[in-house]
Amino acid sequence: MILTVTLNAALDVTYVVDELVPRTSHRVDSVHERAGGKGVNVARVLSALGWQTAVTGLCGGDTGDRLRAELRTAGPRDELVPVTGESRRTLTVVSRADGDATVFNQGGPAVTAGEWEAFTARYARLLGDADVAVLSGSLPPGLPVDVYAHLVTLAREAGVRTILDTSGSALRAGLAAGPDVVKPNADELLDLTGLRDLAAAAAAVRALGARDVVASHGPDGLHALTAQGTWRAAPPERLAGNPTGAGDACVAALAAGLATGAPWPAVLGEAVALSAAAVLRPTAGDFDADAYHRFRTAVSVEEVHAARSHP
Amino acid sequence: MILTVTLNAALDVTYVVDELVPRTSHRVDSVHERAGGKGVNVARVLSALGWQTAVTGLCGGDTGDRLRAELRTAGPRDELVPVTGESRRTLTVVSRADGDATVFNQGGPAVTAGEWEAFTARYARLLGDADVAVLSGSLPPGLPVDVYAHLVTLAREAGVRTILDTSGSALRAGLAAGPDVVKPNADELLDLTGLRDLAAAAAAVRALGARDVVASHGPDGLHALTAQGTWRAAPPERLAGNPTGAGDACVAALAAGLATGAPWPAVLGEAVALSAAAVLRPTAGDFDADAYHRFRTAVSVEEVHAARSHP
Repeated sequence: MILTVTLNAALDVTYVVDELVPRTSHRVDSVHERAGGKGVNVARVLSALGWQTAVTGLCGGDTGDRLRAELRTAGPRDELVPVTGESRRTLTVVSRADGDATVFNQGGPAVTAGEWEAFTARYARLLGDADVAVLSGSLPPGLPVDVYAHLVTLAREAGVRTILDTSGSALRAGLAAGPDVVKPNADELLDLTGLRDLAAAAAAVRALGARDVVASHGPDGLHALTAQGTWRAAPPERLAGNPTGAGDACVAALAAGLATGAPWPAVLGEAVALSAAAVLRPTAGDFDADAYHRFRTAVSVEEVHAARSHP
Repeated sequence: MILTVTLNAALDVTYVVDELVPRTSHRVDSVHERAGGKGVNVARVLSALGWQTAVTGLCGGDTGDRLRAELRTAGPRDELVPVTGESRRTLTVVSRADGDATVFNQGGPAVTAGEWEAFTARYARLLGDADVAVLSGSLPPGLPVDVYAHLVTLAREAGVRTILDTSGSALRAGLAAGPDVVKPNADELLDLTGLRDLAAAAAAVRALGARDVVASHGPDGLHALTAQGTWRAAPPERLAGNPTGAGDACVAALAAGLATGAPWPAVLGEAVALSAAAVLRPTAGDFDADAYHRFRTAVSVEEVHAARSHP
């Protein structure tokens, strides 16, 4: 079983309007709601690929009830832990005119010490059945910045490998506990390290504690710096579409790779194919299954040797 | 008691962001929710002025529950009738940079014939205690366009005077039943009649069935064409602020005037003062009480004689 953790689960709401024009009134033609947050999206992708998955994290209030109701209609098992605060909504306003998306992210519920204890007890129990734990996304208010470090440590003690996909101070603090894989995007990686070269920044992140670093670089694909070697993997073509779910689809492939023990070039090929297939779908957590099967034989994965990675 | 009807009650949600920039992501710094819809706003203003008010209309789903919970903390009595569909949200995104507002209006729940019957039964019962019925706002999907005509007729049969504040085809159909007062804004009035002169358009709307017409003209104030005469009323100064609740505050003053039987110049003075005081508040249904008391002695109300209104 692959366990995904979403500490700041969200109800993802999409409004379709003719065209977003600031300072005017808009008629909303369609409203779509689904359970979201990065870990939930990762679990949706894994579930669609046939993996047993469980979603844990924190969620509360009417908004939490709605997201759990929608999650029940999807594949992953709901192991979310209730909190008193109200879960956040994320709103994406899509203009029909050009497909462009404008996003509004709420902060999330304040979490109490008792709620955090209830969560860690559930997490510890779920680790007993898990092969891999995926820790994704931002932290809700009230949690100390190093909670991911604590969750990585608990997983390692349970013999469960971890993927950490977050940014900023939560990523920096989490690295100290030595997660198996981190998947920052290029901007997050450069921000975190203050460096300007992706390869050098990935090396710096390994030095901070991550065993393996897979940096995503938008349409250019992935750069992986691992204990086994360094690779670049690129999609077969440049794709236009919705980039929001690509990172989560990539993490889903990395989690499946950790669970099967597949070699890195195969895992990276899957990760690029699945990310590219996610770009073709308007909603994070979905991917275009036909495109995925087409892309997975067409991704280029190239080993990068030390002399070339540090010219 | 003043009864307000809101057939498409809404949860009014306000997001505050730094600045709304299309095609980017925004952190929402504060989220504010309250019960809305034009009739709810009218009742809030009347309640703050000390009137006994009841709010009826249709509302449903989780969003309906939330708006009723908020309404319970305000003054008006909740007489909303439940529907199976989900009430709409209206979202206003306010930019902290300049205070500008961008609005997203959902359509509202589909209403069944049985729900409409339950509503008219409740409405008929409430008319027994009402002095004035205020019929405000858009219609949810599934209701025939002439429902306001039916509600005006029921009120007249019960000896209750009516104010109708809606637009387009719902206004046109409602006029046929002869409401006591209609309060279109200038744009609605010109759209409805196809005329380009406000005085001529107001006269045309009386010919369509309204006894009295009070047209609001933004910061220029009100133009009233009534069975007793024609007046113009203007605020003492040009005010910058939020125009969204000004129309509802105006209707509140007109309803109070109908209930007390005050003469038109006094009613129009109150209506302009209350509208202007509402502009100073960021939320529809609120008004600045100090400004209201200051403005009510400073509004200019001028009778317009036939020779001048049709030059």
